[in-house]
Amino acid sequence: MNIVLIGCGLIGGSIVLDLRKAGRVSTVVGIETNQKHLTEAIRSGLIDRAGSMDDIQQSDVVILATPVDVALELISEVMDHLGAHTVVMDVGSTKGKLCNLVDLHAKRNQFVATHPIAGTEFSGPSAAFSGLYREKIALICGSNKSGKHALDLVQSIYEDCGSTIIEMDPIEHDRHLAYVSHLSHISSFTLGLTVLDIEKEEKNISLLAGSGFESTVRLAKSSPEMWEPIFLQNSKDLKKALDEYILHLQDFRKMIDNADGIALKKQMKRANSITQIIKKYQ
Amino acid sequence: MNIVLIGCGLIGGSIVLDLRKAGRVSTVVGIETNQKHLTEAIRSGLIDRAGSMDDIQQSDVVILATPVDVALELISEVMDHLGAHTVVMDVGSTKGKLCNLVDLHAKRNQFVATHPIAGTEFSGPSAAFSGLYREKIALICGSNKSGKHALDLVQSIYEDCGSTIIEMDPIEHDRHLAYVSHLSHISSFTLGLTVLDIEKEEKNISLLAGSGFESTVRLAKSSPEMWEPIFLQNSKDLKKALDEYILHLQDFRKMIDNADGIALKKQMKRANSITQIIKKYQ
Repeated sequence: MNIVLIGCGLIGGSIVLDLRKAGRVSTVVGIETNQKHLTEAIRSGLIDRAGSMDDIQQSDVVILATPVDVALELISEVMDHLGAHTVVMDVGSTKGKLCNLVDLHAKRNQFVATHPIAGTEFSGPSAAFSGLYREKIALICGSNKSGKHALDLVQSIYEDCGSTIIEMDPIEHDRHLAYVSHLSHISSFTLGLTVLDIEKEEKNISLLAGSGFESTVRLAKSSPEMWEPIFLQNSKDLKKALDEYILHLQDFRKMIDNADGIALKKQMKRANSITQIIKKYQ
Repeated sequence: MNIVLIGCGLIGGSIVLDLRKAGRVSTVVGIETNQKHLTEAIRSGLIDRAGSMDDIQQSDVVILATPVDVALELISEVMDHLGAHTVVMDVGSTKGKLCNLVDLHAKRNQFVATHPIAGTEFSGPSAAFSGLYREKIALICGSNKSGKHALDLVQSIYEDCGSTIIEMDPIEHDRHLAYVSHLSHISSFTLGLTVLDIEKEEKNISLLAGSGFESTVRLAKSSPEMWEPIFLQNSKDLKKALDEYILHLQDFRKMIDNADGIALKKQMKRANSITQIIKKYQ
């Protein structure tokens, strides 16, 4: 299989490494504007060489794995370059705007919108590893608009990654992800900012931070370049999620202010169930 | 060393297990109102037998490891029972109110206020393990009011746990911990509640939750019985911390609403530094 990887980072790179392990790769051509990442990707053997849009026509699959704003900018040009049997899949964390745009393209059936639910707080080609998607969910959105060949190929790719595929409407996708992923990134970024702004003595943060704080601010390490366009593309659902979160925080504050121990315990007991629910269908 | 352990859970239990490993324990008498926990603690060998306040006088050290409201209720009675050479240490997450109360007691110099900065989201005697405090910080508050024998004994206990001791004023302790520990528990509890209230389909939460969400809501599993009194005792500092956090969330929402990508990236880049700062002095 000849692959064009656009965006040589954690997400796309980890798919390529799984496909290499499965023995399905002939060549991987990388398109990457970050020169440091490009050099790293070649040196580590993640990609075979740097390429351009002209490599797309002869390829079997294009993996579009850039930040979601860049994906939106590039997708039409990518699709214009597709060969008759080339498939293009994206792997971004937002789906609504991209699917809307692609729906207008004559080659819509060669595109599959996907979102593998996995990642780490690290980024770049050196963060990529084989196994990232094992036993994880891969969402495929708007699949009724993708052709059989395209769907079969993308499904086989995620099978080689060890993922379970679930179909979802693109609009529903963005609404759910606002709550279950994007909001938790903002809660973590802002918790980090709050503590930085108040605790002027770095030493206090370091000495007093237990593993609990560390776990809660882990996502504050996430890439601004990746997350800024996700937040902006999913702003409508995310603003609603943020409003709900702020309301819950204000309620909690009120219970503390009223010294209402019974209400506090009741809410915390309810919150306790979230960690069991996470495991329930996984 | 004869120990009376009041509250046979994760925090006190893990100290006892370290002391047993160090070969310093003659007997451990447990005082525990939760019958299930008491039975578990005896069966696992964490404690040797159940006891009462009457066991305190003949003991070398009392480890007061109950929720912080119970500690406040019990401390005077415990101190009334101290033998001439008995030392009492607490291990709670708030220090101001307890130290204020103890300061009035005739045996103040036999008391050491401590807070080991370690824990997990689990609770009860079965959650206790030797090694919890290894390479962790143990705070000692208001040490100028503790006698030499008491301080030496408590220091040697934390040394056997592998902890580094740092001294801190009790009021400063509560102010810092509001930000670096208590706030992150509330951010996690309320994030869990927000998602529970919005995502009525449990299945969506389970399928769409990546490891990022899981990390951010890990603390939502924490014990309501332990945390409710911490939040109430530290309400003044915590309300300030919550107000700051809500302001930062509202600012972040405004940047999304204004599609101000430059400001969003700037703030996220600033937040990125928190995870390096955490490691800096550890």
